[in-house]
Amino acid sequence: MKRPTMADIARRAGVSKVAVSYALNDQPGVSEATRASIKSIAEELGWRPNSAARALTGGRAQAVGLVVRRPARTLGVEPFFMEFISGVETVLAEHAYALMLQMVTDQEQEIEVCRRWWGERRVDGVFLMDLQTDDERLGAVREIGLPAVAIGPPDVAGELPAIWSDDGESVYEIVRYLTALGHRRIARVAGPAELAHTAVRDAALAEVCREAGIPAAAVVYTDYTGDEGARAARALLIAPERPTAIVFDNDIMAVAALSVAQELGLSIPADVSIVAWDESPLTQVVRPMLSAVTRDIPAYGAHSATALLALIGGEDVGSVRDGYAHFVPRGSTAPPPPEPAPR
Amino acid sequence: MKRPTMADIARRAGVSKVAVSYALNDQPGVSEATRASIKSIAEELGWRPNSAARALTGGRAQAVGLVVRRPARTLGVEPFFMEFISGVETVLAEHAYALMLQMVTDQEQEIEVCRRWWGERRVDGVFLMDLQTDDERLGAVREIGLPAVAIGPPDVAGELPAIWSDDGESVYEIVRYLTALGHRRIARVAGPAELAHTAVRDAALAEVCREAGIPAAAVVYTDYTGDEGARAARALLIAPERPTAIVFDNDIMAVAALSVAQELGLSIPADVSIVAWDESPLTQVVRPMLSAVTRDIPAYGAHSATALLALIGGEDVGSVRDGYAHFVPRGSTAPPPPEPAPR
Repeated sequence: MKRPTMADIARRAGVSKVAVSYALNDQPGVSEATRASIKSIAEELGWRPNSAARALTGGRAQAVGLVVRRPARTLGVEPFFMEFISGVETVLAEHAYALMLQMVTDQEQEIEVCRRWWGERRVDGVFLMDLQTDDERLGAVREIGLPAVAIGPPDVAGELPAIWSDDGESVYEIVRYLTALGHRRIARVAGPAELAHTAVRDAALAEVCREAGIPAAAVVYTDYTGDEGARAARALLIAPERPTAIVFDNDIMAVAALSVAQELGLSIPADVSIVAWDESPLTQVVRPMLSAVTRDIPAYGAHSATALLALIGGEDVGSVRDGYAHFVPRGSTAPPPPEPAPR
Repeated sequence: MKRPTMADIARRAGVSKVAVSYALNDQPGVSEATRASIKSIAEELGWRPNSAARALTGGRAQAVGLVVRRPARTLGVEPFFMEFISGVETVLAEHAYALMLQMVTDQEQEIEVCRRWWGERRVDGVFLMDLQTDDERLGAVREIGLPAVAIGPPDVAGELPAIWSDDGESVYEIVRYLTALGHRRIARVAGPAELAHTAVRDAALAEVCREAGIPAAAVVYTDYTGDEGARAARALLIAPERPTAIVFDNDIMAVAALSVAQELGLSIPADVSIVAWDESPLTQVVRPMLSAVTRDIPAYGAHSATALLALIGGEDVGSVRDGYAHFVPRGSTAPPPPEPAPR
């Protein structure tokens, strides 16, 4: 069966194609009774306005794009992306917008995809995820003329609207809690150093340690995978000066650290405290449940989509601080073990 | 900056718009030197053929659709979808096809999305995921005339090409391994009963238990979440006749079961063996690592995309059995604990 056309409707209704066009586009030229009859036949046949035709007449693509650049093996396991996308979809669905998705391996490819999508009028705008401290995409979308919102801190997003949550504030909240428990040797297992939000967390961590009068926290950079998280955790846990608390920059690495501690015969939280970033079902199915930074990630996606659609609609969109992050202590954090008496 | 048009190229090249159109569409009417010069200017300006215009002239949408119908809270945490999508993307990228993604909550919405996408010429075909035993989408896509491949068993897919892995064979492999170790009381924590691949596993499990001369395995149906998996595992583990081995239909439920066993003071695998379906980074970051059915899920996605593009290209596509599933025993399976001596 072919897609129903205006000609099909005209044949069925026994009227001219012009009359069908008038009726379906709500223009004068047909009686109300004919209009109603034509619309009911169109409905029955499942006729839909042709998006290609609308786009050509100066309309919109009615789609926005999301290019994903993390390695597939990370993407699969980290709940963040699918939760973010599900939030994006709730807003897009309300506006009959579609989401175009593509996976790439580097920034150059991502820019090429954006250029092609915009040139071919496949999208009206894009999300820029995983903002980097020195991000070539910012200049590229400006040059291309492609509407874009950045998912990341505003000081890095430049002229683009930034939808962000204040990771620095969360670092403060975590470290103050840990120092209140008595921890003085804190380490962090981070994501890639070039990501803007990694840099934000780095800066806040250095500052809060200084303010708290404790030694600067050791930071190990990884690719966010469980494998690298486990390796980093192992190195920290067998070091002569073992940290008493470790903060992980995602959930899967923190879960991996629980297993590593178990292998090494250490008990969580008695021997070492563990904090995960972005609470997820993962952090709650393990024992002990992990103390974690929790955000409403679908809401984050929804806010981002709202901002992008407003930008596409020609509104003046400023940066939006997404205010949903807070730290939730669970079973994986406790006071540090007593120090051995000095000899 | 606006998208470059043929008029921009004409202005820059100092020729007519018609000449530009001839040159870019490889039609006669301009000299080879002019054609080369126009193409080079078009390249420089970043001009792209307008997909809307091409679609109107009988071309294709150059996009395929994937509607996702599982609850967001499951989607986020189960690696299957992102891995499948990443495999799909590798094939689409080669053919400059885009992926349209939408999330819905029920079949009716999914059918409506397919109808709209096809009516608006936004996609050339779709994947039908999570095939049900009585699936209304099969009739709907046929009625709409929308090319589709089913991701699921061919006996359910009807006339559609089915891309599937033989879950029944994997059930045989798991249960034969468990009975060889000496297990006779096996249980399974399944996904939703209405999914076609759940039914395939049900039937195979009943048959292999009968053939092995052991009692029929208890099956508990869930929604695939860690919460429901934990609840099901708890109920089985505190039952008077505790199973000695439990097979879980995804990874997150099996990980949750490890925590439940720990809460109950049971040891894995000494007290009970655990098997996970679809090995993932999750099943390998926990201790013990989980014995699991492993598949190359990105390859599964790639095969599905290849089949859909062939179908769209007018080829006669049959069902494809994806041959990548096999069972990998790891640390979570062992012989059952000795039975107490009969009194």
